[in-house]
Amino acid sequence: MGELVFVGLGLYNEKDISLRGLEEIRKADAVFAEFYTSLMPGLSFQKLERLARKKITVVSRKILEEEDGKPISDEAKKGKVAFLVPGDPLIATTHVDLRIRAERQGIKTRVIHGSSIVSAVMGLSGLQNYKYGRSVTIPFPKEGFTYETPYRVIMENRTMGLHTLCYLDIKAEEQRYMTIKEGLQSLLDVEKQKRRHVITPSTLVLGVARAGSDDPTVKAGYVGDITNHDFGPPPHILVFPAKLHFMEAEALITLAGAPEQIREIVK
Amino acid sequence: MGELVFVGLGLYNEKDISLRGLEEIRKADAVFAEFYTSLMPGLSFQKLERLARKKITVVSRKILEEEDGKPISDEAKKGKVAFLVPGDPLIATTHVDLRIRAERQGIKTRVIHGSSIVSAVMGLSGLQNYKYGRSVTIPFPKEGFTYETPYRVIMENRTMGLHTLCYLDIKAEEQRYMTIKEGLQSLLDVEKQKRRHVITPSTLVLGVARAGSDDPTVKAGYVGDITNHDFGPPPHILVFPAKLHFMEAEALITLAGAPEQIREIVK
Repeated sequence: MGELVFVGLGLYNEKDISLRGLEEIRKADAVFAEFYTSLMPGLSFQKLERLARKKITVVSRKILEEEDGKPISDEAKKGKVAFLVPGDPLIATTHVDLRIRAERQGIKTRVIHGSSIVSAVMGLSGLQNYKYGRSVTIPFPKEGFTYETPYRVIMENRTMGLHTLCYLDIKAEEQRYMTIKEGLQSLLDVEKQKRRHVITPSTLVLGVARAGSDDPTVKAGYVGDITNHDFGPPPHILVFPAKLHFMEAEALITLAGAPEQIREIVK
Repeated sequence: MGELVFVGLGLYNEKDISLRGLEEIRKADAVFAEFYTSLMPGLSFQKLERLARKKITVVSRKILEEEDGKPISDEAKKGKVAFLVPGDPLIATTHVDLRIRAERQGIKTRVIHGSSIVSAVMGLSGLQNYKYGRSVTIPFPKEGFTYETPYRVIMENRTMGLHTLCYLDIKAEEQRYMTIKEGLQSLLDVEKQKRRHVITPSTLVLGVARAGSDDPTVKAGYVGDITNHDFGPPPHILVFPAKLHFMEAEALITLAGAPEQIREIVK
């Protein structure tokens, strides 16, 4: 029996892999990769193959989700397989599913971690890690239907004094990546119906674009202003801060260009 | 004016740095590092210096927290400085503080992300990212006083159907790293006083030791059993799962050796 090693590629481009991850790829008998669970905007597949010193087979969502990743597990029964994924592995349910199936077939699995948007955005926000409540994804509206869950999660977290990390939807096959503007619009649409004053033009919000790149955009301000701020290309992500500690307000002002008046909402 | 680049070293040893991070270090005029905010159990300082191809100055908690990291900012006024930190930078408040001070002195700052326990433990647990509530640290008891906050956070999260990630206290200067056994004992002590049945011998819990190493221990089970499980050397971390989805239960059983009976508590 072989082995299946999940290797995290990190956030931005082929240089975000760890030295340990690169070693694993170079020792592998076969290398697969998927690029649909997150966008790595700077990635060059050619450069990645050159670094890996071998051919990399890209697998689609269909192969992973409808065919149980069969090409990967078939190879992993015979030898050492590296499976490359954006960010840190196993944050996506699909990876967990593949790992469980592999283990049940007697294939050993291991994980080489990579940098992830989960901790990156916490760090870039300057907001304290232990003050984040549950996170949520804002999905693309479906046939005119706008999802209310993100609105509710932001509201509930804020009531408890907790920040909310909002992932923005990705439809990689269609190359659609939700922008900060679209995410805010979706929340404002729910506000229009619910009228709980959760998301108003004067609500404080933080937007982050291209975390992990050489030119990330990190900008905090009021929803009315952030909606019109140019964040550049995707991926984008949103954070709704709750009541701020002193240091958090200073971080948003100095590191994310928030207006100085936010000092007034410090707890 | 120079530049201060925060470089995440990742989880386990010197090979967890990204290719991008290593490039930054090699281009830097001066390199500093701190190793007290997290334990990287496999790190060899000699190997790290060899990789960096230059001398690395280790700074203490005192220099960072009482002297505002002055040696670092002094160098960063003149040239390009890399500041190496365990995990992903800026998760520790001290790093955020240093970054704010640097920016206010006109020093440009950038961040090279690294693998972090935040996402690593989410991935290794097999529990869904968006079902984690706020996280909490279990501190070492102080003069007989046991902190109640972790107990309360676990209870509140569970009421909302959310998992709780419990960091365990670190006193790096004394080389004290709280173990899973100690963390659970601290929670059981609070249970004795509060009697809310939040932490009992039959509560499901997941322990992870040495995430990111070649031999992490990932074991789920009941508190009564996990207390006596040998997790090996630190760092340790705990996760208290709330109600499980089907796939989460399967992950705990297959990937963390949880008893098959936990299928009964699936939502």
